[in-house]
Amino acid sequence: MRILILGGDGYLGWPTAMNLTANGHEVAVVDNYLRRQLCREENVEALFDVPNLHKRAELWEAVSGYKIPVFIGDLNQWDFVEEVFKKFVPEGIVHYAEQPSAPYSMLDRRAAMLTVQNNLSVTANLIFAVRQFCRNAQIVKIGTMGEYGTPNIDIEEGWIDIEHKGKKHKFLYPRQAGSLYHTTKVMDTDLLWFYVRMWGIRVTDLMQGPVYGLITDENKENEQLFPFFNYDELFGTVLNRFVVQAVAGYPLTVYGKGGQTRGYLNIKDTLNCVRLSLEKPAKPGELRIFNQFVETFSVNELAERVQRAGKQFGLSVEIKPIENPRKEAEEHYYNPVHTGLLELGLKPHYLTDDVLAKMLEIVIRHKERINKDAIFRGVKWD
Amino acid sequence: MRILILGGDGYLGWPTAMNLTANGHEVAVVDNYLRRQLCREENVEALFDVPNLHKRAELWEAVSGYKIPVFIGDLNQWDFVEEVFKKFVPEGIVHYAEQPSAPYSMLDRRAAMLTVQNNLSVTANLIFAVRQFCRNAQIVKIGTMGEYGTPNIDIEEGWIDIEHKGKKHKFLYPRQAGSLYHTTKVMDTDLLWFYVRMWGIRVTDLMQGPVYGLITDENKENEQLFPFFNYDELFGTVLNRFVVQAVAGYPLTVYGKGGQTRGYLNIKDTLNCVRLSLEKPAKPGELRIFNQFVETFSVNELAERVQRAGKQFGLSVEIKPIENPRKEAEEHYYNPVHTGLLELGLKPHYLTDDVLAKMLEIVIRHKERINKDAIFRGVKWD
Repeated sequence: MRILILGGDGYLGWPTAMNLTANGHEVAVVDNYLRRQLCREENVEALFDVPNLHKRAELWEAVSGYKIPVFIGDLNQWDFVEEVFKKFVPEGIVHYAEQPSAPYSMLDRRAAMLTVQNNLSVTANLIFAVRQFCRNAQIVKIGTMGEYGTPNIDIEEGWIDIEHKGKKHKFLYPRQAGSLYHTTKVMDTDLLWFYVRMWGIRVTDLMQGPVYGLITDENKENEQLFPFFNYDELFGTVLNRFVVQAVAGYPLTVYGKGGQTRGYLNIKDTLNCVRLSLEKPAKPGELRIFNQFVETFSVNELAERVQRAGKQFGLSVEIKPIENPRKEAEEHYYNPVHTGLLELGLKPHYLTDDVLAKMLEIVIRHKERINKDAIFRGVKWD
Repeated sequence: MRILILGGDGYLGWPTAMNLTANGHEVAVVDNYLRRQLCREENVEALFDVPNLHKRAELWEAVSGYKIPVFIGDLNQWDFVEEVFKKFVPEGIVHYAEQPSAPYSMLDRRAAMLTVQNNLSVTANLIFAVRQFCRNAQIVKIGTMGEYGTPNIDIEEGWIDIEHKGKKHKFLYPRQAGSLYHTTKVMDTDLLWFYVRMWGIRVTDLMQGPVYGLITDENKENEQLFPFFNYDELFGTVLNRFVVQAVAGYPLTVYGKGGQTRGYLNIKDTLNCVRLSLEKPAKPGELRIFNQFVETFSVNELAERVQRAGKQFGLSVEIKPIENPRKEAEEHYYNPVHTGLLELGLKPHYLTDDVLAKMLEIVIRHKERINKDAIFRGVKWD
């Protein structure tokens, strides 16, 4: 299948590109290096130097023989979108091309506006490009479990049947997100759902939980092919960050009571979920929604696991609850369904002590590169 | 109360400005004439010439003695927003400053992007301005009944209690809009609700049905003070358009089966609803939602009423069902609650034969100005 990856430079974008080529697909990547730019501006660069996309594509071709064309440009600009879709008419599009950080979206007004405008405009341009250049192509969109928030009822997989005053209707599951970034993902879903109904486009919207890890079947610990590995509060997901904090001797910063529970998954599972969604696509006029995670943990549980894993390496890891800079429920009901991707064929990887040990081992090799000042920013939600 | 009206030049903006001053409030208006520009571009200008905002403010001051400061500029631009909010620090803001047409939003890609970017950015800038310059000010936002779509269960007033698998949660009523314009209003609600929760801002979100009429207590048939009166498919609401079609001898264009049912209100009621919402405001941290309409009609019922009213003027009005250019349910369940504004004190005006006769009488006086070519565009939804 001819697959275009929007946001191909990101934490998930580049590993997805390699994975799809290794599984027989023809892949091109698009990026404008927005995330690199923001990390530089905020002085929170990744743990490893990451070669640019052209260089990574060369490295991957040298290792695997697979060629990945690279398009560098801004998908907010229609002339660029047009050029890409005319040159590489895709059968599937993976849409990662968004400002991906919740704390960044809460930093200040300019960061908020960038998040709203970038995320919505790229999604809208994608929809118009599909209509104009590849009407039957399928869109695989990365949403987030954060769209649902933490309601007091079970979270279904995207949809809910409501019985009310003796009548019934099936609705999109009501969404109530915990950051502006997550709210833009709710808006993306609003927008995609509208055009699915109007134009019969094909969309799989993946409500993904926080991802961890950096080793995939393709990079095989070749560090030149590693994804971005951010360990800061802005762009680092919580488990990756805790692993680095453990190595740096920086107490694990648990926000408030630490009962915040989310669904997590290994980066390997992300790649498989995206590939399965492409290979077993949504039908025309279908908005198919999967809850994309493998197991749930509270922040306290994650901290304790990292602490325990650290002991194997002689690390004495401290856990330090701090005042919560966010506005969120610190203890709550959380019972989200996640059977759709398993039914599609996902074979989950779980968060074992071995997985954590491997992550710690790699980070320890790069201990001297950790910038402790980057870890905590205390971006406040109110 | 010091009230700033965003979109003060529009169909509802200017009448609201006069109404609030006449009721003892201090009012300033902001507009960038976007709607005038779009009407000119699409060759669908209003039935009456409408003086610019500075001239209308002069006319109104001459008639009433009330002064209304005018700010002309683009609320997408933060430097302009800042200037306005510093000069006129409001206690209440009425937000009408959006691209207001469903068919326009479906015209083409550029019109769609303008709608998404303008509507979301202005709403976001407003929220940031309130936080920075007038944290306790209340926002009265014009939403639309169209946010709900036409679900098969009763439409509640903004919120719904869902019982699911033995547990309960109160959610925003699930929204599923019928045009891109309406979808941007859903996104506005997403955005406002997020910042209500995070920052405790005060918001009344008015889910308004289609408005009709042009006479208010303030303009007293002084045509220089009339609102925009569009009668075209793009910017004219259905009843206003039907009245003009009746006068022009242009068959009333009923889309499909004509069973599309909506909640309607007289422009006088809009003004009272907005004023009541300001005078009896939402509490800090409250998103208060009202369904703002007075009575429901199907399109067939509206057409028949206009036909009947036309007879009094010797008009032989033809009703002509045409293929529906939109994608929408042409026959559906529709039972929306609308008690909140009545409880606040609204005294409704109903659509009587007298009201229609008055509208017809005014339009007949301007019959020679009707451009029949502007009436139908057939903007297709798919």
